[in-house]
Amino acid sequence: MSRVVALLTDFGLGDPYAGQVEAVLAGASNARIVHLTHSVPAHQIALGAHVVDASLDLLPAGAVMLGVVDPGVGTERRGLIVRRGGRWLVGPDNGLLTPACGPVEAWALHRPEAWRPTVTPTFHARDVFAPVAARLANYARPEQLGRAIDDPQRIDRPRASIDGGAARGEIVHVDSFGNLVSNVPASFVRGAWTIETRVGGLRIDGLSVTYGSGGDAVALVGSWNLLEIAVPGASAAARLGCGAGDSVMVSRRRR
Amino acid sequence: MSRVVALLTDFGLGDPYAGQVEAVLAGASNARIVHLTHSVPAHQIALGAHVVDASLDLLPAGAVMLGVVDPGVGTERRGLIVRRGGRWLVGPDNGLLTPACGPVEAWALHRPEAWRPTVTPTFHARDVFAPVAARLANYARPEQLGRAIDDPQRIDRPRASIDGGAARGEIVHVDSFGNLVSNVPASFVRGAWTIETRVGGLRIDGLSVTYGSGGDAVALVGSWNLLEIAVPGASAAARLGCGAGDSVMVSRRRR
Amino acid sequence: MSRVVALLTDFGLGDPYAGQVEAVLAGASNARIVHLTHSVPAHQIALGAHVVDASLDLLPAGAVMLGVVDPGVGTERRGLIVRRGGRWLVGPDNGLLTPACGPVEAWALHRPEAWRPTVTPTFHARDVFAPVAARLANYARPEQLGRAIDDPQRIDRPRASIDGGAARGEIVHVDSFGNLVSNVPASFVRGAWTIETRVGGLRIDGLSVTYGSGGDAVALVGSWNLLEIAVPGASAAARLGCGAGDSVMVSRRRR
Repeated sequence: MSRVVALLTDFGLGDPYAGQVEAVLAGASNARIVHLTHSVPAHQIALGAHVVDASLDLLPAGAVMLGVVDPGVGTERRGLIVRRGGRWLVGPDNGLLTPACGPVEAWALHRPEAWRPTVTPTFHARDVFAPVAARLANYARPEQLGRAIDDPQRIDRPRASIDGGAARGEIVHVDSFGNLVSNVPASFVRGAWTIETRVGGLRIDGLSVTYGSGGDAVALVGSWNLLEIAVPGASAAARLGCGAGDSVMVSRRRR
Repeated sequence: MSRVVALLTDFGLGDPYAGQVEAVLAGASNARIVHLTHSVPAHQIALGAHVVDASLDLLPAGAVMLGVVDPGVGTERRGLIVRRGGRWLVGPDNGLLTPACGPVEAWALHRPEAWRPTVTPTFHARDVFAPVAARLANYARPEQLGRAIDDPQRIDRPRASIDGGAARGEIVHVDSFGNLVSNVPASFVRGAWTIETRVGGLRIDGLSVTYGSGGDAVALVGSWNLLEIAVPGASAAARLGCGAGDSVMVSRRRR
Repeated sequence: MSRVVALLTDFGLGDPYAGQVEAVLAGASNARIVHLTHSVPAHQIALGAHVVDASLDLLPAGAVMLGVVDPGVGTERRGLIVRRGGRWLVGPDNGLLTPACGPVEAWALHRPEAWRPTVTPTFHARDVFAPVAARLANYARPEQLGRAIDDPQRIDRPRASIDGGAARGEIVHVDSFGNLVSNVPASFVRGAWTIETRVGGLRIDGLSVTYGSGGDAVALVGSWNLLEIAVPGASAAARLGCGAGDSVMVSRRRR
């Protein structure tokens, strides 16, 4: 199978930007192109980093993720190649691509001859990162494209504050079904004996592994690997009157 | 040519859900991936079934349609493989994938070893249906993935009531150009001698096979294989002040 | 590498139209499909032609662009193949695909046996242009699909009026980041000694080749190859209170 290049950006689909990046990739490589998302909210690096974390393991080994949430495009911020878990990531050096902590292998892009001949200052995704991603997909080595560095930028993810058996978090995203995605990590609730979630004046007991059929709000670990509040068949955001920024409190007891 | 896997969902493009499904498919198969639509209105199984019907014949023989409009995800509803017209369909057992009536070949998914190791209760599209679709695209047989059943769910499509030469229907969809898509089927108007359509206080005589140039509203059989009302070069919805749910009456006379 | 077919339409992504075109292409050719954009504003041929111009060079040699902004679909307007710069373009004969002036090679589609057996009058993109694009991607010759013509339609692009050292233009597009895209061409400002841009009551001196870090509005040549006004890290549209149609005046002095 040919390699995969996966795009993750805040470009939206209302402009030809994502399509132009795809055109450059298709001209430079036979890799199969996957559009993970172009709907990271504009310039929200921390939320984008969370989506990177949640999506990376879904890509096959050797895949390249072209990740661009880049409010600093055209400034002196560096371009990066990062290697994580057998995949490559290419994009700006602003924390989007790196894990929040721990060791990381990274290279700073410094070979303009690997880029498009003319680099538009506002569009490094198309003119710098896409050509580099295509070369990685074509089995170039990172040393051919950048120099190894040990100081890539890091960024905190949206994160609940956890104190023993209590997590104080918030809603970080409302998805298109009205599900409320919190910043309480799956690791806090998995394996606990009892769970109690308070959100929007409501108390939800327990953690659902399947939706019920009663139409009541449930708490569960969703596809973001975070605690979600959902109402089966309806919008939890509308039913509970909650949105991004609202508080979520979770307490757990372990056996 | 490698096989085609076509996605049809109500996920929208504002979340990474469609992209994560695509990532899993790309890692499990070399099939070419087509995005038929992710804009079925959330949880509207009947409208989704109509889009399935209208799109299936466009796919090449042997193609796999991954169809997910799934308000019951995570409940006891079964997962299905359906065979229709030489194509495969994979998704929930809620009527989305089956014809409204007539014989149908179907298998209920019951082999978790064919799925992703961890199944998130809210995301069977990614964790169950995508791996199954990839295996079908890789020429697995349905018996390797499910057991044959004879009772898959059925669902009525949006449908006009027809009484001899008169059809009483309604607008079921307004497309992004403002065209009014009714639920009066092409079969009612094709081959008729005269057609008269009443919508929004307007009477439209005849059926257009091409748009006129006068800027008046016309009735025609559109790409949904349903009667549509359109205004050449403009929005019929705005011009007629009509929308989903409004009445459409059609009378015909045959030779 | 297999050939590329790139889609550029005003279909949006709220209907299954773009997906049905993709399905027909995938069934008729092994070409790789790129979605340049489906977000040209409905029926805006001139803006679409500008996006065609800005995107064509990004496609590899031999690529086919399927370009559809087609308010006249179903009338007597012809279908076209155009050859520009080693690429093929397929779509309606309304100026979308041709350069505004200069020589052009074009063929009018006249072989219904190369189309889908049934042509829906509202959907030539799927039933006429996609099959023709697939055949070109499969190395058919244009003479097999149409007859050479020397009178394809032309259309003016959005264009500033230029008088010596002064350009009087306007904002033609606000992108999803709030950048203001004007109709002042890159050629007017490139190589000039000094540049002064007036927009929304503001005077901007000089042309930025990189974004600054001060948060002030800058003028630069963006990815559309037009003069843009941007505010680093923020929306210029919101900050300046400007939108499409607002005046942009640029003066230059050359050495």
